[in-house]
Formats: sequence, structure tokens, C-alpha cells
Amino acid sequence: MASAMAPPRVVIIGCGFGGLEAVRVLCGARARACVEVTLIDRTNHHLFQPLLYQVATAGLAAPAVSAPIRHVLRKEMQRGRLTVLQSEVTGIDVAARTVQLDGGAAIAFDHLIVSAGAVNQWFGHDEWAPFAPGLKTLADAFDIRARVVGAFERAELAKSAGDDAEREACMRFVVIGGGPTGVELAGTLVEIARHTLPDEFRHIDSRTAQVILVEGSERVLGAFVPELSASAMRQLDKLGVQVRTNCKVSAIDADGVSMATPDGDQRLTSRTVLWAAGVAASPLARLVAQGCGIVLDRAGRVPVQGDLSVAGFASISVVGDMAAALSDGKPVPGVSPAAKQMGRCAAANILARVRGQPTRSFHYADYGSLATIGRSAAVVQLEVPLLGRLCFSGLAAWLFWLFAHLYFLVGFRNRIVVLFDWGWSYFSFARHARVVAAPNSQTPRSP
Amino acid sequence: MASAMAPPRVVIIGCGFGGLEAVRVLCGARARACVEVTLIDRTNHHLFQPLLYQVATAGLAAPAVSAPIRHVLRKEMQRGRLTVLQSEVTGIDVAARTVQLDGGAAIAFDHLIVSAGAVNQWFGHDEWAPFAPGLKTLADAFDIRARVVGAFERAELAKSAGDDAEREACMRFVVIGGGPTGVELAGTLVEIARHTLPDEFRHIDSRTAQVILVEGSERVLGAFVPELSASAMRQLDKLGVQVRTNCKVSAIDADGVSMATPDGDQRLTSRTVLWAAGVAASPLARLVAQGCGIVLDRAGRVPVQGDLSVAGFASISVVGDMAAALSDGKPVPGVSPAAKQMGRCAAANILARVRGQPTRSFHYADYGSLATIGRSAAVVQLEVPLLGRLCFSGLAAWLFWLFAHLYFLVGFRNRIVVLFDWGWSYFSFARHARVVAAPNSQTPRSP
Repeated sequence: MASAMAPPRVVIIGCGFGGLEAVRVLCGARARACVEVTLIDRTNHHLFQPLLYQVATAGLAAPAVSAPIRHVLRKEMQRGRLTVLQSEVTGIDVAARTVQLDGGAAIAFDHLIVSAGAVNQWFGHDEWAPFAPGLKTLADAFDIRARVVGAFERAELAKSAGDDAEREACMRFVVIGGGPTGVELAGTLVEIARHTLPDEFRHIDSRTAQVILVEGSERVLGAFVPELSASAMRQLDKLGVQVRTNCKVSAIDADGVSMATPDGDQRLTSRTVLWAAGVAASPLARLVAQGCGIVLDRAGRVPVQGDLSVAGFASISVVGDMAAALSDGKPVPGVSPAAKQMGRCAAANILARVRGQPTRSFHYADYGSLATIGRSAAVVQLEVPLLGRLCFSGLAAWLFWLFAHLYFLVGFRNRIVVLFDWGWSYFSFARHARVVAAPNSQTPRSP
Repeated sequence: MASAMAPPRVVIIGCGFGGLEAVRVLCGARARACVEVTLIDRTNHHLFQPLLYQVATAGLAAPAVSAPIRHVLRKEMQRGRLTVLQSEVTGIDVAARTVQLDGGAAIAFDHLIVSAGAVNQWFGHDEWAPFAPGLKTLADAFDIRARVVGAFERAELAKSAGDDAEREACMRFVVIGGGPTGVELAGTLVEIARHTLPDEFRHIDSRTAQVILVEGSERVLGAFVPELSASAMRQLDKLGVQVRTNCKVSAIDADGVSMATPDGDQRLTSRTVLWAAGVAASPLARLVAQGCGIVLDRAGRVPVQGDLSVAGFASISVVGDMAAALSDGKPVPGVSPAAKQMGRCAAANILARVRGQPTRSFHYADYGSLATIGRSAAVVQLEVPLLGRLCFSGLAAWLFWLFAHLYFLVGFRNRIVVLFDWGWSYFSFARHARVVAAPNSQTPRSP
């Protein structure tokens, strides 16, 4: 579609781990400016999602886990073939090869990479969303922070007004979903209750707060080997988290959670329920499916071929959490290393097509998984080439997790800030980001 | 009103500079736990307002300029006579000596200190508020940050869509009000446009952004001596701010600002208008006035007597920006040192009343004023005992301003973080807090 002279136009939707890596390949030195790239994102920042739970639990400020896209990509920008646009994508016209933006503009492409990630989903119960926020965006993290910090405040108010039932509901936290995010949230909530807040309240004893982690299956961290799940259970128990496995949530409302347990139906009264039980592909997947005439998988993801393109549409690739991809016949998991690797592969395949070279199939290199649980508590499962699988937990795993995350955190400055904040918090138990902006300013505002 | 055994109950509304100092006096070691104190605030944090403009202009993260009230007052809390409640005050019943909270609870007091500060006001034109946000709260700062960061993004979008008029409107920033806040905002906006953002955009040149500071009177920083106003004008001009004095705003809407200038009526097309031209006392002042049957002054402030109590109501004191107080016959200015001094005086007078000692009249110790303008640019006007007035500007004033603000910043940790952020920004020109949480999460939320 490009004229003989103009370089091919690549549009990338989403600057998560997949999109960012794709831009780095396509605008890197080795690409020799052979393509014209437009990156579109709804926000102005790349978000380091593995640490987002620390923003939600007031350990880190938002700028410590997110970086302005333009700043991260300033070197690529200076090579002169990259445009970054902050806008919402409202349509993808596969036939005309254009992406429609909120506001009406259309961006033409010769090659498209869709990497818009995942959104929260409540198993078809969107009505639960207001009562059990998920954790995918900075706005989500602020919402959760306000609820968690506010719960202790409301407990103090209730206690001083003599309302013990309300105090108890405010002091019970329910986290739904025993994956890495649920485990991190539950472990951190206990730390806040037992170590950060004691001695700061007059009427309540924050240490008596209950943190309940609800998991539908029989073990937490189901992506890990059973031994590490068991270790995680022990570490959670030691921290003070009540883990409830084999419990299936049936309802969530303003007063708490109803669930089916092995001992029959049960009700947990709680003012703070957090959702870590499920995500689905971005709704943009539906636009791709409609345009390409394909069917999404159960999680709303776009099935892709070996080279990450959509069957019959070599110019359209999908990467990261939106893609239902296979590697050596096995599904690729929705984790950040996989998104990065897919982003690099899809970008390299575009360069190959532009240069008339053969594309290559995606191969997921699995180096293992880490999950942190709390202070000095974590599990690590490494896949070491030649040596095989290496599992460990506890303090060693926690230190490994800490340095691995610092290493991958985007932007040199953020690493220093996060290290400083962590060091400070570790020794002082303080959580400096406990401030919540009042949503209701006393000044009149636009709706 | 208190029983013979129970200590007198003091309620303090608002934990700004005045309220915080009052708590420190009333719950300090020298008060010997002779009063029972309840501190009520709408938010969970004490805000260091003098640095709030840095949050608005993406130089600092919110937790760097704000600290959880409970954390700041943990030592006072441990002495056992302090309750902190996060709630909105909805009523003050002077006869019954109770404060009503949002939700219905009533808190009884024997002594009341009202220190709820100031809110933005648009000279009676509340309809301007959606188009020209003021800067008083963290929520205000996030709003302004989103507008400023978003303006450059929209300019890039407009330029790439070929809409030059829209690009120009997005690249013109109008700050209304030439007091310290307006001067700080204007100076920082220029720095962002000229030093932070260049080379990060493909289609626009951020250096061409216009920053216009509109002032109604004939000089900026009217609280300073004319020589420093003139110096500030020169420093603003050198930085690249267009200062327009003697200009009176007549209308603000989504497209910009209309104003009466010495050269006739004029229109500035702009997508980003910031309001720094006026504040009024918190609406709580009206509750006090109704309860006490007194008349507020023109700025909505409560007239107080020499000892900061309301005439005829020895048990009710008003301090800080809400109080129309006199010192040596001159009005006390609405600045943070005055609020602190008033908070300490009102608290000391309560202790005096409790102990049957005479109260003392408030005397404002004016040590001078500082205003920063931008990188290495500031003005300082010190009132030195015996020596008299000392004025200086430029780099020396800027360094003085910097260390003075660091010194007064609440909480040891914040000082380190702010110093680190400033050092980094000064040498790198980066502004790390440029991230804006998308208000529109793709997940369903409560209204």
C-alpha cells in the first residue's frame, strides 16, 4: 500500500510490555529507519504492572511504577520515524487498513500490531465491579488505595460512634483470587494492619483486622508446582492471611461476599472486597475479530498463527494478553515476559516482511515464575537451561524477586526511587504513599 | 460543660498548618494531657501547600508534599488524648456545643478551633471553574497536571491531523493571577515547554508554547516591595513568560479567556487556563457566622478578637485563612506562617482558660516572604529583627527559597525525597511525575 518511496507504515496499539518492545525493535538502530511507526495509547505512560499492587497498597507513588511513554522512547523518537499519539482507538478498518481514533482521525497502516492488553472481568458479573475493584490501571490502584486507607478511617469513626458491627465490616478485607496479584494484595494488607497502622488509631486496634484470601480451586498460585503452592499457603498463614480454598463466589454487594464453600454456603460481611480472580482481553479484540471475520477464544483473545499474525491477514499481528498464541503446541501464558517476547517477534517479522525475508515462528522462552507474598516471603520457580527446574521460597525467594523486579523496572531513575522507598519501608514499616486525594473538592467542578 | 473528672474536650476542624500546630500544642508534652482532643479533617493527609504547584506541574508525586495525618501525629496519638477522624463537618451547633459529621454523628466540645482554610473562588463566577481550575487540594493538582500534560498530547494529535488552529490553542497556556501561585505555575510551565519536552514530540515543537500570565493590578507579587515585583517581571520575561498586567478577566469558557486590557478588550484562545487569582474562606465560616450571629468579611472570613476567639464566644476560635485577624492593628495575611502562629496561639489560649490563666493577644511575627519563579529565579523579602528589611532575587533567592521550603516540609522522609527529586530534575530537566491516570478505565465502575 505504501508508495514506492515512502517507508511502510506500522501502527502499534498499546504501550504495555508487548507494544513497547515492538517499538524498540522497529525504531531501533538495527531497523535502520526502514519503517514509519505510529504508537497509540489511551494513557501517557507505560505501566510496570508487576509493581502496581504496591501503588494500590500505598507503598509506592504512581510515578515510581510508571513512566511517560515519550520519555521512555525519547531515543527512538530522535531517530525520526516514530510518532506517539495519546488517544482511544474506536475502530479498526481491516479492508481500508486504517485505525480510527476517538475524535475522528484515521491513521493508515501497512502493518498493524495490536497489543492493548487485558481488562478486569468479573466472570460475566459486571454488577460486582463497583463492590470489588480489580487492579489493571493506575486509576484502579488509586481506587483500591482509597478503599483500603478509608476502611480503617471508617472503622475508627464507627467505633467512636459505638457501631461495632460496622467497625467489624470495615476491618474485614476479602481478596478474591489466589493468583499472584491476590496473594500480593492479601500479604500486603496484613502488613499494613499489623505493622504500619498500629499506634496510629485511638479507638480501633488495626492488628485485629482480618484479611481473607478466597480461591476457587484447591490451591493458591496454581501456575506454580504444588510444592510452592503449599509453601505459599504456609507463608500466608504465618503472615496472618486466612486462606480459603475451594470457595466459589456467588455474589458480591456493598455488604460483602457470598460464596459456596466445602462446608456449605457462607457470607463474609466486608466493606472492602478486592478482585484478583480474572481478566479478559481488551475489548479491542472484538474489533479485530469483526474485521478479520474470526472467532475469539473463551477469554476473548484473538487466535494467532505461529508468526503471531491473524490467519489470512499477514499485515495484522496480535501480541501479549490479547493473543491466544501457542509455543511448541502449548498455550503462551499471560505474563509480561511472554508479552515482551511476542512484541519483539511480531516486530521482527514485520521487518522481515518489509525486507522480503521469511518470518519466524514465535517461541516462548520460559525462564520461570516469581510471586511475592509479603515481607521476606515469596516463591520462585526457575526454569534453568540444561539444569532443569529450580524451586525455592522464603527470604531467598523474596530477595530474588526484589532484585529481578528492580532490574526490569523501566527507567533508571525509577529503580533508585523504588529501591529507596523499599529500603525505607522495610526498616520503618511506614508506607509513605498513604495519601488519598479527596474526590469531592469543595470547589465547583465540571461533571 | 465537662464533668468534674473528665478533661475538657477540644475539637479542631481541619489539619492544615493552623490545625496541625494547635494539636501539637494541645497534645504536646507541656500540655500534660490536660485536654481531650478530637481532630477532624475531610482528607487523610496534611498538605504542604507551598509545594503543591510542583505536583500540578508534574515535578513531584503527591506523597512527596503530603503526609498521612495519623503518621504526622503518631507521637501525640501515643500520649493517649488524641482522636483523629476523617469526615466532613456538616454543622456546628454553638448552643449545644457539638460538631455534626457527615453520616450523623455529633462530637461534643468544650473548646472549638475552626481551621478549615480557604477554597478557590472565581470572583462570583463559579461558571468559570470548569475551564480554569484553581490549586488548593491534591485533587486540584491532579486535575491541572492532567490538563497541562494532556494539552501537549492534544497539540500533537491536532498537528498530525493538520488542525493548526487547535494546535495553537493547545499550545497556549493562560495563568490568571500574578501572586506567588500564578508566578510559580507560569514559570514552571515555561520550563516544561522549553526544557522537559523538546525532542519528545514528532509534529510539534514544544518550545513554541506560549505562557501568558494575566494580572489585574499593575504589578505581579503585589505583597512584595515594588523593586522585587519589578525583578520578578524581569525574571519571568527572561524565562519566557509573557506577563500582562492591568488586564481584567471578563469571561472564561472552553475556548479561552476574554479580558479588558489597557489597549481595549482582548481574547486569548487557549485550551488550558489556570486560576490563581483568588481564594475565599472555607464555607464552614458561614456555619460559624450563623451559629454566633456575626457577619463575615468580604472574603468570607470570620472576624476574631485579639485572642482569636469569636466575640461573645470564648470557647470558639478561628485561625488561619478562615480568620479575619488583626495584629498591631494590621490585617494578618493568609500565609502559612501566620496560620501556624495562630494555631499555636489559639491552642495556648485554650490551655490558659483550662488552667484559669489569662489569655494572650495574637501577635503576628512576620519574617518576610519568598516566591519562586522558576529555575534559579526567585525573590526574597526578609524582615530581620533590628536590621530591618532585606531584599534579594535571582539564584541566591532561589537557593534560599529551596532550603527554607525543605526545612519546613513536614516529615523527615519527605525532605529527602523532595531534595532527591529536585536534584535529579535540576540536572536532567526531567519531570518524573508526568503520568496521568486515565479517568476512563475500560472496566465498569460505580458512578
